[in-house]
Amino acid sequence: MHFEAPLPLRSGTSIRAYDLCFETYGTLNAERSNAVLELHALNASHHLAGLYAGQDKSDGWWDTMIGPGKPLDTNRFFVIGVNNLGSCFGSTGPMHRSPDTGQIYGSGFPVVTVEDWVDAQARLLDALGIVSLAAVMGGSLGGMQALSWTLQYPQRVRNAVVIASAPNLTAENIAFNEVARRAIVTDPDFNGGNFYATQERAQTTPKRGLRIARMIGHITYLSDDVMNEKFGRTLRTSLAREAQLLAADAAAPAPFRYTTQDVEFQIESYLRHQGDKFAEYFDANTYLLITRALDYFDPARDFGGDLSRALARATARFLLVSFSTDWRFSPTRSRELVKALLDNRRDVSYAEIDAPHGHDAFLLDDPRYHQVVAATFDRIAQALSS
Amino acid sequence: MHFEAPLPLRSGTSIRAYDLCFETYGTLNAERSNAVLELHALNASHHLAGLYAGQDKSDGWWDTMIGPGKPLDTNRFFVIGVNNLGSCFGSTGPMHRSPDTGQIYGSGFPVVTVEDWVDAQARLLDALGIVSLAAVMGGSLGGMQALSWTLQYPQRVRNAVVIASAPNLTAENIAFNEVARRAIVTDPDFNGGNFYATQERAQTTPKRGLRIARMIGHITYLSDDVMNEKFGRTLRTSLAREAQLLAADAAAPAPFRYTTQDVEFQIESYLRHQGDKFAEYFDANTYLLITRALDYFDPARDFGGDLSRALARATARFLLVSFSTDWRFSPTRSRELVKALLDNRRDVSYAEIDAPHGHDAFLLDDPRYHQVVAATFDRIAQALSS
Repeated sequence: MHFEAPLPLRSGTSIRAYDLCFETYGTLNAERSNAVLELHALNASHHLAGLYAGQDKSDGWWDTMIGPGKPLDTNRFFVIGVNNLGSCFGSTGPMHRSPDTGQIYGSGFPVVTVEDWVDAQARLLDALGIVSLAAVMGGSLGGMQALSWTLQYPQRVRNAVVIASAPNLTAENIAFNEVARRAIVTDPDFNGGNFYATQERAQTTPKRGLRIARMIGHITYLSDDVMNEKFGRTLRTSLAREAQLLAADAAAPAPFRYTTQDVEFQIESYLRHQGDKFAEYFDANTYLLITRALDYFDPARDFGGDLSRALARATARFLLVSFSTDWRFSPTRSRELVKALLDNRRDVSYAEIDAPHGHDAFLLDDPRYHQVVAATFDRIAQALSS
Repeated sequence: MHFEAPLPLRSGTSIRAYDLCFETYGTLNAERSNAVLELHALNASHHLAGLYAGQDKSDGWWDTMIGPGKPLDTNRFFVIGVNNLGSCFGSTGPMHRSPDTGQIYGSGFPVVTVEDWVDAQARLLDALGIVSLAAVMGGSLGGMQALSWTLQYPQRVRNAVVIASAPNLTAENIAFNEVARRAIVTDPDFNGGNFYATQERAQTTPKRGLRIARMIGHITYLSDDVMNEKFGRTLRTSLAREAQLLAADAAAPAPFRYTTQDVEFQIESYLRHQGDKFAEYFDANTYLLITRALDYFDPARDFGGDLSRALARATARFLLVSFSTDWRFSPTRSRELVKALLDNRRDVSYAEIDAPHGHDAFLLDDPRYHQVVAATFDRIAQALSS
């Protein structure tokens, strides 16, 4: 969808003549009352679920959650996925040309905030003729957008599902984002953010920096427990070596290779692989923009840090979910949101799922978690038909 | 101290004609029974405490702990600090020339393990005429060396003080080390580890990679709590800006600058400063070597993972200390050591200090922590004179 009118941004500037890439699933009912807006985090897009023609396996980032008969049932709801401004999966971003200068934005793409994204999403809904949402839903940074919807457009949101999220980032979270950004920005191939192909030169993307950023990300998405369970101190080649040793001394551990630069442990191999994959397709400027949107989000800031006052505007019914081993967006942070909503006598359900997977748990299909979400959407569906 | 005889290493190779840089504090008694060996972690050296001529402030990394009248009282003990092989503070390391090739070692410096370091330290004690140590002591990686002393030379160690340490690294710890190493190795200025000045070229150190490595390190040395307390979400320039705003609207928060590459939050400024400082003086090859020594340490490995069997050799009396918010070397890991020692009916004292400072706590002068250490050395001193 193309938007010609300028979108004012929190930074004081604006962006005009932009595209938003979106997908819809299911059917909008006659009353236009069954729409659910799904909001994405760092490395995701408008493509939520399902198969493209000819595919065997879904590329949708929340295919476990969304689809016919799934917790968010597309037989009952009209689900919208939208790629945010500044991202690299189809909506206007740093790799596109500014209509004002005719040049590729690069690092000149305006800083966008969670609030700006929500404004852009509201315009998309206007264009689709959807006045009121049955629900907004998201995990992590997507949960921040869902929360912000209830504050910016309270009259347009009947329910909000906020998963593995927080009212703002802690200093430690900002710190991890900053290290990742420094790795990207100080990669010589970043070239001040202007690394895209032009008529004069070929594209040279800052893959070293992106790899480091992604490796740091993966460590923080997992829990210490699940890392120990999945990888522990197992050597990368231990199976082969152990087989080799079987004849000689079955009790001896696989020998170390004694190397500082090559892979020794499986966890290293996993992280390098994740970093390599990510660096192939993700945009470095997008990484900076999206982590900054995370850093800046802080609805209590204009209320002297008083989250209860900040959330007084929200009128939606809430479901919040957190996961016990998520140290990036810990249960404590979800409880702060629950308390602030209860201080305002809002209708809140909260589930704290005891799961070993860390922040990643929100993308997995733990049955207790999915049952809680399914029950919420059952209730929302019943309200639609009554 | 120069050593000409080759030191066999766990990797199967050896190193010869090497120097160990060391300092001593206090006086060795006539019985040669009051020696305490202090072992260092990643970014430290033989210089433990005290002032060099003309200094106002100690550069010693454990000056809070060691000195006249301090918990490890140099009026009573003869304390030895030694810089480990492969480090960059005076002992032979990657920046020196191999006696075999005449070339600077660079990335060709042999991989050294905790066990190798302990062997080298034992030779230093031999040269100093010290047969038996009143105590070995260290924190973090230094604690691993202290533990290894009790296993490699049980008859030479009467007491071991093991602080904020672990029987091995978890997958998450290895993961953080690996990201730091990748940041260094993929810095174009690393040049395969051969970045030292030669007759043909000037030195170009991989400062970008070292900065990233240090920033990651600092995040893991602190706790989430102490980061929130020290930095929180405070903006770097908020005080100045708030003063500026006072006339206009005292209630409004300081405005964001809306930048992806410049510093916005204080925590960013802190981390960048730490990274910059470190990159000026630390050696990149040393970083790789020392983090690998951490990764490899695992005394239970030769015992099928059975730590109790692995520690059966130890005969020293132990003091172990951990800190509640240390998530890099958590109390759980110290308790594993305590349990394994108790399984062997060893004499163990264990203190778990409730402190907000994370792993860094072991370098701070929390009075409860220091009292525990002081009481241990009081007991050791009494045994000396009896």
